[in-house]
Amino acid sequence: MKMIRIEDGAGGKYMGEFLKKYVIPKFNAKVGEISLSDMEDSSDISSEMVFTTDTYVVDPPVFPGGSIGSLAVCGTANDLAVMGAKPAYMSLSLVIQEGFPLDTFEQVLDHLKQWTDVVDIKVITGDTKVVNSGIGIAINTSGIGVRNPHLEENLKVLREFREYPFQWIRDRGLSEGESIIITGNIAEHGVTIMKSRDELGFEIDVKSDVFPVWLFVKDILDVGGITAMKDPTRGGIAGVLNEIAEKSRVGMLIHEEMIPIREDVKGFCEVLGLDPLTMANEGIVVMGVVEELAEDVIRALKKTGQKNATIIGKTTSDFEEVVMETSAGTTRVIPPPTSDPIPRVC
Amino acid sequence: MKMIRIEDGAGGKYMGEFLKKYVIPKFNAKVGEISLSDMEDSSDISSEMVFTTDTYVVDPPVFPGGSIGSLAVCGTANDLAVMGAKPAYMSLSLVIQEGFPLDTFEQVLDHLKQWTDVVDIKVITGDTKVVNSGIGIAINTSGIGVRNPHLEENLKVLREFREYPFQWIRDRGLSEGESIIITGNIAEHGVTIMKSRDELGFEIDVKSDVFPVWLFVKDILDVGGITAMKDPTRGGIAGVLNEIAEKSRVGMLIHEEMIPIREDVKGFCEVLGLDPLTMANEGIVVMGVVEELAEDVIRALKKTGQKNATIIGKTTSDFEEVVMETSAGTTRVIPPPTSDPIPRVC
Repeated sequence: MKMIRIEDGAGGKYMGEFLKKYVIPKFNAKVGEISLSDMEDSSDISSEMVFTTDTYVVDPPVFPGGSIGSLAVCGTANDLAVMGAKPAYMSLSLVIQEGFPLDTFEQVLDHLKQWTDVVDIKVITGDTKVVNSGIGIAINTSGIGVRNPHLEENLKVLREFREYPFQWIRDRGLSEGESIIITGNIAEHGVTIMKSRDELGFEIDVKSDVFPVWLFVKDILDVGGITAMKDPTRGGIAGVLNEIAEKSRVGMLIHEEMIPIREDVKGFCEVLGLDPLTMANEGIVVMGVVEELAEDVIRALKKTGQKNATIIGKTTSDFEEVVMETSAGTTRVIPPPTSDPIPRVC
Repeated sequence: MKMIRIEDGAGGKYMGEFLKKYVIPKFNAKVGEISLSDMEDSSDISSEMVFTTDTYVVDPPVFPGGSIGSLAVCGTANDLAVMGAKPAYMSLSLVIQEGFPLDTFEQVLDHLKQWTDVVDIKVITGDTKVVNSGIGIAINTSGIGVRNPHLEENLKVLREFREYPFQWIRDRGLSEGESIIITGNIAEHGVTIMKSRDELGFEIDVKSDVFPVWLFVKDILDVGGITAMKDPTRGGIAGVLNEIAEKSRVGMLIHEEMIPIREDVKGFCEVLGLDPLTMANEGIVVMGVVEELAEDVIRALKKTGQKNATIIGKTTSDFEEVVMETSAGTTRVIPPPTSDPIPRVC
């Protein structure tokens, strides 16, 4: 008997294959310019709105820096924000295991409340199920994001430099010669979750980077020139760099030493044999920006508090892969990760 | 340590209390005329759209008459339809247990596909997680429904008879002297799920009534005069009759012998000590209709194939409860169920 494998839902190459084989061929509807098969972070339901969904199953439900509640708001809001949409409305669907501690549940609700207030996203519909199965807690949030002046400004400025045939910020939006920017330190969410489960007592003082990126994305949209954006959750930056490069049919040259990462986080990954490029993040964005505006975008990011924002490379038509110049001076291809190294990371 | 109880998510009075204590006070946003605290089937995000969400956890995932896939489409489409909205767009978020049989998964997907085609609801965004916890499969679908000529016609006709201050069909829409209609046999979904788990071999040939009610709701909206609608899932018709009566501040007199139910389904419930009025349904609607149009609505329902559609009673200001005249000639109050008798029924 064939069975579902953990890799089929782990955000990497295997999940892509699984979805393309079983799910996507059945649901090829298209309302606006984006269909399910485009596998973007959201799809448009009109020229004014995009729609997204995510079920969070992170284990443990509470971790340094946040909880499944923080993820359920920020993660869904981020999937809207990277389209250039302002997060506006949200559903909240809870599946809770019988016997789940009420005080943990209340902590999760407090985080949900806190972040919906910060993002100003309105929870207007919900559902609650209690089950006698070992899920702990799973939270689905579906979100609706709306067209806004920041997105319009970005498209206007961008079109002074090049053609851009899309109405939203698209994965396939990159062209040759653009700068690749990352807005903050990588791997901190993934390492936090791994550390939270570690019973070996490996010492590292790290917390999840979970954060609603719209709070700074809106300001860089005002600078303009952003051609593609993604939040590198499951599969990390290795995943999203490959995804936007492949969809845009460009190559990329990335410089390892430019990738912002804390030394101790890097060390933690090295010891455990993990590649930090494949580790999940929940509060940063990877983006393409027209070269002429890249420094302005960096300045705007630093002004909003993203002090580790950096240009990590650029797009090229010289090759088709994501290639990294390593700190050791060699170059290597970064393949799309087959799956996230950590199950239930978000 | 206080813990989450199965009743906290079982669709009855206890769930209502749980949500009012812990969840709803945190999320009191209102975009249009409906807020989370109204606990309607959907909430409006504009004068043109309503939004709803549901996570399905039914166990077993495949049962006579359908599967969790059928429920995930019909259930969410029905929550839109009872507002008078045409089901239009849907998200699809899968949480699957590692080791789940692939052929069962494909069967579920086939049902998802089949019903989205019938309803003409477009799946445009999704998410997939595989977990190593005993959930089997859980599916969240969030749906967006749109204003349509059928709803407009209903509101127009209705307002020739009485004031109706709402833009959508609302739970609180009932007035005194209206007919209560039920569109088909009750308790068949709940009995099917219970039977699917029964290892005692109780013989009954029954299948779930899972069905997208928009297919007939649109025709009765054209007749007009519908003041409130609900699909009686968890908690059954006892739940929804109490809910619309309480929200509308009217009483109700119901006639037991008018309630459509198969004899063998009734017998099955009797033997197991279950109240069929509290058993879940997935393809029928309970509604209030202005008395003058009730017979026209019944005729329209029968024409669309709802051959057991019946007027089961009417609203009254003589008392505040839902009162049933029993087949034995006595009367009794039908209280709101404390919870659904069957866990993981939808």
